[in-house]
Amino acid sequence: MYFPQVAIIGVGLLGGSVGLALQRAGLARRVIGFGRREGSLAQALERKCITDYTTHLDEAVHDAGLVIVATPVEQTADFVAAAAKGCGPGTLITDVGSTKDSICRSADAALAGGAGTWASFVGSHPLAGSEKTGPIFAKANLFDDRMVVVTPTENSRPDAVEQIDTFWQKLGAKTCRMHPAEHDAAVAITSHLPHLVASLVAAITPEELLKLTAGGWQDTTRVASGDVELWRQILLDNRPHVLLAVEKFATVLASFREALEQADGAAIAQLLEAGKRTRDALGS
Amino acid sequence: MYFPQVAIIGVGLLGGSVGLALQRAGLARRVIGFGRREGSLAQALERKCITDYTTHLDEAVHDAGLVIVATPVEQTADFVAAAAKGCGPGTLITDVGSTKDSICRSADAALAGGAGTWASFVGSHPLAGSEKTGPIFAKANLFDDRMVVVTPTENSRPDAVEQIDTFWQKLGAKTCRMHPAEHDAAVAITSHLPHLVASLVAAITPEELLKLTAGGWQDTTRVASGDVELWRQILLDNRPHVLLAVEKFATVLASFREALEQADGAAIAQLLEAGKRTRDALGS
Repeated sequence: MYFPQVAIIGVGLLGGSVGLALQRAGLARRVIGFGRREGSLAQALERKCITDYTTHLDEAVHDAGLVIVATPVEQTADFVAAAAKGCGPGTLITDVGSTKDSICRSADAALAGGAGTWASFVGSHPLAGSEKTGPIFAKANLFDDRMVVVTPTENSRPDAVEQIDTFWQKLGAKTCRMHPAEHDAAVAITSHLPHLVASLVAAITPEELLKLTAGGWQDTTRVASGDVELWRQILLDNRPHVLLAVEKFATVLASFREALEQADGAAIAQLLEAGKRTRDALGS
Repeated sequence: MYFPQVAIIGVGLLGGSVGLALQRAGLARRVIGFGRREGSLAQALERKCITDYTTHLDEAVHDAGLVIVATPVEQTADFVAAAAKGCGPGTLITDVGSTKDSICRSADAALAGGAGTWASFVGSHPLAGSEKTGPIFAKANLFDDRMVVVTPTENSRPDAVEQIDTFWQKLGAKTCRMHPAEHDAAVAITSHLPHLVASLVAAITPEELLKLTAGGWQDTTRVASGDVELWRQILLDNRPHVLLAVEKFATVLASFREALEQADGAAIAQLLEAGKRTRDALGS
C-alpha cells in the first residue's frame, strides 16, 4: 500500500496523528493538509504531520489516492461528498468520526449518483481520542494497538473496505467491522455515556472542594476536559442511542438510590460487584 | 516526633503504607502490625511495612505511643475504643477511614468516660486510596503531596490534634482540618459519588462491548475495580450525604436528558462547559 499523495481534511489531534502515523509507515510521499485556519495548518506542518497544506479543498484532494476527513462530525459528511466529487474514481475516502450512522447515510446519499466516476467512501472510527485537541498533541503512535471500527454499508465497494482495513492496520491499529448503526449503539455505552457522566460529576462539584479530590474523582472526570463543541456535536448526532444509554444508566442509578435509602447492604454490594466484574474483565 | 513503638491495626494498602512511610521518616523503632489473618501480617512483615506482628490487640497497643487504626470503616470505632483502653493515657490514636462522622461520634462516646486515663483519638482521612488492596501494594510514598483531612471534634485534645497533623506532614502529606460531618458531606461529592457512578457505568456495559472501550471508559470506570466490601461499608456509613449527592447528580442528569430529548445544543454545551470548567480548574 502506497499513495503518492494523501489529503487530510482537518488537521487536529486525529488528523495530525494520521499524518504522522502514515509517514512513519512509509505509506505516502506527499501529505496535504486542508483546513480553514492557516495558523493551525502551519503548526501541523511544523510538527511534520503534513508535508504541504492548502486552504482550497480541490487542491488537496484532486490528485490524492487517499482522503482522510478528520473534522468535527457535523461537517464530516459534507466534506466527504465534496472530496469525492473533486478526486478520481479510484480514490479511497474515510473519516475518523465518533459517530457513524448519520455520516455514512449522508455520504452514501451524496455519492449515490456517482458510482464509477466519484471516489468511494468507507467510514472509520479510531477509538483513540483524548481530552486534548489540536495538532500540537498529535502522535505517530496514537493508533498503535488501538481499535479502529470500520463501518461499511450495503453501498460500500468491498475492495475499498479491505483497503481501509489494511490502511489502519499499517498505522498500528487493530480493526473490526460493524454496521454504522450498530457502532453508534455500542459507543453510546462505551464512550458517550461515560463522557457525559464524567461531565456531570465534575459539574456538580463545587470548586472549593477540589482540594479534597484524589485519584477517584480525577480519573472519573478526566474526559470532562474534552472539547465542548466536539462533544456537543457527537452527543446530538447520536441522540437516540445516547438517550437509550442514559435511560439504562438512570435505571441502575434509581436501583442504587433505593438500595441506599433502604440501607440494603446486599443490594449495594450486588451493584458494586456487577461493576467490578465488568471493570476487572477489561484489566488496567 | 519519635515513637519507640507504633501499632498499626489492619495492615492493608493504607496501614501498610503508613508503616513504610513512618519508617522512611524515621518516626519509630518498632512498628507492630495487628490483624486477624496471619498470612496477611506475614506478607506485610516481608514487605517491611511492619517490624513485628501479633494477633493479640493488647500486645500491639500496650506500649505504643501511636496507634493507627486502618481497618474497614465498620470496625474502626470499635478498634479505636479497644485500643484506647489498652494503652497509656499519653498515646495518640488516629485512623484512616473514608468516613468520619460516625467513627468520631462512636469513638468519642466510647472514650467519654476515660478522659485522662485512656488515650485520645483524632480522626484522619488520607485522600490516597486506590482500587488496589492489600499490603502487597503498600508504598512508602503513598501520602507524598496527598491531602489528609484531620477531623477534630469538641472532645479532641488540642495537643493531640496538633500532633496528628504533624504526623501526617512527616509522612509527606498536606493536612487540613474539617468537622467530621463537614468532611462526610464533602467526600460524598468528591469520592463516594464518583465511585458509585463509575461502578454503574461499568455495570451497564455488556462485556462483549469491552473491545470498543478506549481511554474515556477506562478512566471513568477505573475505581469500579475497588474492593466491594470496603465500598459497601463506606456508602452505607455515609448514607445521608451520599443520597444528597446522588440527588444532585440525578437532577443534572435529568436536565441533560431533557436537553438531549429536545436536541437543545445550547443547553448540552452549557452542561459540558460547566463540567469542563471545574475539571480544568483542577488540572491533569
